[in-house]
Amino acid sequence: MSKPLISALAQFAAATAGRNMTKAAYVAVTVGVLGMVLLTDNRAKEAWGWVGALLWTCLAYFVFEWLVRLRHMARQGRLSLYVSSSAGIVDAIGALAVPAALLLGVEPKTAWLLSVLWVLKVVPGIPGLRQLRRVLVLESGPLVSVLVIFLMVVFLASVAEYFLERDVQPQTFGSVPSALWWAVVTLTTTGYGDVVPVTPLGRLVAALVMISGLGVFGLWTGILATGFAAETRRDNFLKTWESVSKVPFFATLGPAAIADVTHMLRTIELPARTTIIRKGAQGDCMYFIAAGEVEVDLPGKKVQLGEGAFFGEMALLGNNKRGANVSTTKVSQLLVLDLVDFRVLMARHPDLAETIDAEAKRRARENK
Amino acid sequence: MSKPLISALAQFAAATAGRNMTKAAYVAVTVGVLGMVLLTDNRAKEAWGWVGALLWTCLAYFVFEWLVRLRHMARQGRLSLYVSSSAGIVDAIGALAVPAALLLGVEPKTAWLLSVLWVLKVVPGIPGLRQLRRVLVLESGPLVSVLVIFLMVVFLASVAEYFLERDVQPQTFGSVPSALWWAVVTLTTTGYGDVVPVTPLGRLVAALVMISGLGVFGLWTGILATGFAAETRRDNFLKTWESVSKVPFFATLGPAAIADVTHMLRTIELPARTTIIRKGAQGDCMYFIAAGEVEVDLPGKKVQLGEGAFFGEMALLGNNKRGANVSTTKVSQLLVLDLVDFRVLMARHPDLAETIDAEAKRRARENK
Amino acid sequence: MSKPLISALAQFAAATAGRNMTKAAYVAVTVGVLGMVLLTDNRAKEAWGWVGALLWTCLAYFVFEWLVRLRHMARQGRLSLYVSSSAGIVDAIGALAVPAALLLGVEPKTAWLLSVLWVLKVVPGIPGLRQLRRVLVLESGPLVSVLVIFLMVVFLASVAEYFLERDVQPQTFGSVPSALWWAVVTLTTTGYGDVVPVTPLGRLVAALVMISGLGVFGLWTGILATGFAAETRRDNFLKTWESVSKVPFFATLGPAAIADVTHMLRTIELPARTTIIRKGAQGDCMYFIAAGEVEVDLPGKKVQLGEGAFFGEMALLGNNKRGANVSTTKVSQLLVLDLVDFRVLMARHPDLAETIDAEAKRRARENK
Amino acid sequence: MSKPLISALAQFAAATAGRNMTKAAYVAVTVGVLGMVLLTDNRAKEAWGWVGALLWTCLAYFVFEWLVRLRHMARQGRLSLYVSSSAGIVDAIGALAVPAALLLGVEPKTAWLLSVLWVLKVVPGIPGLRQLRRVLVLESGPLVSVLVIFLMVVFLASVAEYFLERDVQPQTFGSVPSALWWAVVTLTTTGYGDVVPVTPLGRLVAALVMISGLGVFGLWTGILATGFAAETRRDNFLKTWESVSKVPFFATLGPAAIADVTHMLRTIELPARTTIIRKGAQGDCMYFIAAGEVEVDLPGKKVQLGEGAFFGEMALLGNNKRGANVSTTKVSQLLVLDLVDFRVLMARHPDLAETIDAEAKRRARENK
Repeated sequence: MSKPLISALAQFAAATAGRNMTKAAYVAVTVGVLGMVLLTDNRAKEAWGWVGALLWTCLAYFVFEWLVRLRHMARQGRLSLYVSSSAGIVDAIGALAVPAALLLGVEPKTAWLLSVLWVLKVVPGIPGLRQLRRVLVLESGPLVSVLVIFLMVVFLASVAEYFLERDVQPQTFGSVPSALWWAVVTLTTTGYGDVVPVTPLGRLVAALVMISGLGVFGLWTGILATGFAAETRRDNFLKTWESVSKVPFFATLGPAAIADVTHMLRTIELPARTTIIRKGAQGDCMYFIAAGEVEVDLPGKKVQLGEGAFFGEMALLGNNKRGANVSTTKVSQLLVLDLVDFRVLMARHPDLAETIDAEAKRRARENK
Repeated sequence: MSKPLISALAQFAAATAGRNMTKAAYVAVTVGVLGMVLLTDNRAKEAWGWVGALLWTCLAYFVFEWLVRLRHMARQGRLSLYVSSSAGIVDAIGALAVPAALLLGVEPKTAWLLSVLWVLKVVPGIPGLRQLRRVLVLESGPLVSVLVIFLMVVFLASVAEYFLERDVQPQTFGSVPSALWWAVVTLTTTGYGDVVPVTPLGRLVAALVMISGLGVFGLWTGILATGFAAETRRDNFLKTWESVSKVPFFATLGPAAIADVTHMLRTIELPARTTIIRKGAQGDCMYFIAAGEVEVDLPGKKVQLGEGAFFGEMALLGNNKRGANVSTTKVSQLLVLDLVDFRVLMARHPDLAETIDAEAKRRARENK
Repeated sequence: MSKPLISALAQFAAATAGRNMTKAAYVAVTVGVLGMVLLTDNRAKEAWGWVGALLWTCLAYFVFEWLVRLRHMARQGRLSLYVSSSAGIVDAIGALAVPAALLLGVEPKTAWLLSVLWVLKVVPGIPGLRQLRRVLVLESGPLVSVLVIFLMVVFLASVAEYFLERDVQPQTFGSVPSALWWAVVTLTTTGYGDVVPVTPLGRLVAALVMISGLGVFGLWTGILATGFAAETRRDNFLKTWESVSKVPFFATLGPAAIADVTHMLRTIELPARTTIIRKGAQGDCMYFIAAGEVEVDLPGKKVQLGEGAFFGEMALLGNNKRGANVSTTKVSQLLVLDLVDFRVLMARHPDLAETIDAEAKRRARENK
Repeated sequence: MSKPLISALAQFAAATAGRNMTKAAYVAVTVGVLGMVLLTDNRAKEAWGWVGALLWTCLAYFVFEWLVRLRHMARQGRLSLYVSSSAGIVDAIGALAVPAALLLGVEPKTAWLLSVLWVLKVVPGIPGLRQLRRVLVLESGPLVSVLVIFLMVVFLASVAEYFLERDVQPQTFGSVPSALWWAVVTLTTTGYGDVVPVTPLGRLVAALVMISGLGVFGLWTGILATGFAAETRRDNFLKTWESVSKVPFFATLGPAAIADVTHMLRTIELPARTTIIRKGAQGDCMYFIAAGEVEVDLPGKKVQLGEGAFFGEMALLGNNKRGANVSTTKVSQLLVLDLVDFRVLMARHPDLAETIDAEAKRRARENK
């Protein structure tokens, strides 16, 4: 192979080894799964040729990715860790499932179905998944008990229905397993209608089951809502605390006040060249720069503000029309302070209020 | 055309240009959409004549509205802003979609279907829509991850079902796309029943999918409930803060106390000649007038109260039967203080308590 | 008629006039509605005789009730108020609907259907209905906007489906009204399955509608949950405040502390001769008597405790097995203080802690 | 019988009498219910032999269990208490239901259906069930009112539908009872599709019913979510308070501070030999030992920490990679302090901060 090609491949391999999901990986997953779906469509029979080609390409990519990572990890001596990690297992499955099936002589169309497992590669990339998992873990106690209640209702209901309906509709309620199917379909309020009680008593039981269905829903949601509220607060606090400590503006505050301030701020991450404030728009929050840099586009000149600086305070000091465009020049991390919290903050920490006021005045003079 | 007609039209145009949705616009949207609906009803064939007339009238109105606004904006030099704004786009669609379709030779009955897009004009008028959007934006992270999980379950489940059911019911589970349809219908617990697994394993998978359906529901709702609670607090605070600052009664308080008070008050907007308090009714809140004027209907005489005054305090000082009718004389903005918060407030700010007490006594004497 | 009968009737009338729902009324509503239901059952044809008798009896009762109340209100000069009140209207409907229908020559079986309106009489008796209404009123803004979004989705979706499906299934998607039916059935995730899209595009649209269905659910619930949480807090506070002020034990506290305490207590109403504490049971709360009287069943003697006294404190002072049975002697109103709040309270108000401790010691000595 | 067998049986009996659900009981319930389910499956006809044997064995076990407990309780003189307790009733049912049915000459296959009641034995073992019950009790008021509204809508809707649809579909809407069935199926958004309105008006009513269905859902969930949030806070506080009081580290704090601390901590129970901290993992919380003992696996030596000690504090003092494996040596109860709360705590109670800091430094030196 020609030198440039090799080096390009090497670079590509490095990128692949580094990040969990490269753009290429996303493309491969999407194309692969769509191809698999298409493959099963009878109207696409004749398309088999090129669809198959696509699938083989995706598979090749995943195998390549897996090997690169194995090598990479082996070099760093983290091979065993990687292989036993969920990411490692998912990579292995993605690379080996289909070939294994084919080697085992499974009918190709069926073997390729396993390529649906490629979607698992997306999991680690899901935003806020960790947060969801924490909620499920913390609330697992009540959630499990709701599940147990759910199963208990399902069992009792299905036996009751079997007893009440078996003689009238032997083919649908002829055994408890079929009645169980009915019970699940009903308690989740899915209600296919393929199995429906017809006797008065049977319908009474069914009605009770449906109503308990609402109850189960309600409990379930109530539990998750509760857990989620707690988790959100916690999560936001952690993210923000890091940033606050970076902003000199808050350095003067004691730890108690900082904890207090942290509860009021919200962290946002912005890519470079993003407009944060649009001139003339309504403004109801101000920003502190925890990391990165922004550019204020004043008439005549452009002003750069770096880490620790703040802007947009005018909107909170009476004049709520934004006076200038502000946009990031590099990837930045900003702390947002809502009007609500701004006022509470100023009330509790007058010294901060003065600092901001003074700065605002200075800028106003300057811009004259 | 006769002079009065022209001036009337001019006035109408002015009104149209000014507000986003005039009464006329609401009528036009309603009539237009209903007409379109009717049009598609086969029993209404013969009615085509006058229904068509209606539709053309509505269309005419929307074209007129659009042109008026274009002219209006052009004059103010905000043309480009308007054209690129969502409102501008909606107006343009409302005015051009149907004619364009007709010109392109689309069959009339089909072309008129596009008039359903007129409903989009209502969107900006929806109360609290901004609030909903904010919630969706702030919680977008978790919401997206739930959506991704949703899609992942849908994919895995549908491939599993396809594999398990394709031989038994080739026409319904004959391809993954049809299985996908089943999966969505099931995971959302809609359960049409047009596609239903029949094999034991297939039903087991389906049961799991339904139960995850509850989970998805729960997470989704939990997230939205959390976001909504936060947003409501914030929103109410902002609205109220403006008004509180207008009430001299609170002027004596320091900023901290004001922030405190603001959390206790609720703002309500009332049209003119609305009864706020009905004599003899149970009372559990008092009112401060942030803007407008109210009239207290005392035996013998009527007393007007203007901005900054308060009333209904008697209900909170022991006697909880309302003593007189109170109604607005002009559009007014009131701050409502619930009994609960009244007591907390009085406890924290005894000075306010005295002011109110004194005033209450004075009034009691007067009314003797 | 014999004297006793008349006086009995008079008493009965008085009772009827007084309370909104007498036991008799509940019986009449239940019997009446069940009778009406039975009436429509074809298998119950022959039963018409006595069922009819029942219905006529119920009707007679409601007419009687209505007349008694009219007379009662007329005497008190509140006739017009009553007639225009919701209760008055419901009573009037209950008494007049069926007869009116019969007089108008409506077929009897149909006329009697109107007796279902009798259930409306139960409404004012529903516990916590006022609370629910308040939530709906306070949150009406967001709820309405969700509803508008709901309708908008329904409209756009049904027109799209009509366009996509009309040629394939003219009898089910042949007009927008039928498509609207489909849209509502789908967006509420009810999914009868009587109207189901079959074209790929149609199913795609349907899938989107179902997922928005989850969204609508979520928003709706989120809003209600938020409103409900606020309302519950408020409601409990109001109920409790009244009682706290009655308990001398708290009189020593300043208003701020009282507001604070009130947030910790929960009010419960108990009928006479109800056991509150069962000896040997686990205890995690103490009680203050706001009204009524309780009897402590100590070995050998019975001790009465009246308004302002407290009991069950032992459980919060180390020994968490209840030491004696306690039951109400008359209708009583108690304030419940949970272990959690007890500790916080004791921490914030040491003086209260001492009072309780001292009393507890005194009692312990006594009971030796 | 041989001596060892008897003593083994005696031991087994003792275990059974002691705990509510022994492993054996869980096995018996599972096997028994599965057997019963299998029994009703027509394809399992020939299996009747050994399935029957299984069922008889389970039944025997439950009878044995019941008798053992009766004897055990009788000895402790708590017989009447046990017999009247829910656990006692469930045991009695489990032991007597099937035999009673068989004696009464019920057809065996039907009699054995009663063995589904064995699942009730699991109820007392469900985690957090008590919590759920408390929520349902505390919120019973609003929940009942929602239920009443639910039933009212069902009644009014079904009568309306009966009136509108009876002539068009006499077999499905021919009587109010059948209409009631439709109403429940619809209001719970189950939507079997076996009974569906077809007249325009009927569909309009149905649409309203479905939308109210969402409303009922929302209210229900809102209420439960509210109640659940309150209950969770309370529950966690109680559990934690006990443990906090055991930790000398917090002894220096005043009661107010303790109540404050308690709100920040979370209690977890861990079995012996469980890894709490894995070396190299991300850490965002520290632990206090309320009961039990943990072993820190430092390079070279193992350090034991007993009750009152804390660990994992490094993660909260800058270095957030865990430095060593930590695992329990016996059943332990730990208090978890999240990073969030750690900072707030340190801010409010600087003395604690110093103690932890000092200890951390000391350990760092040591481990050098």
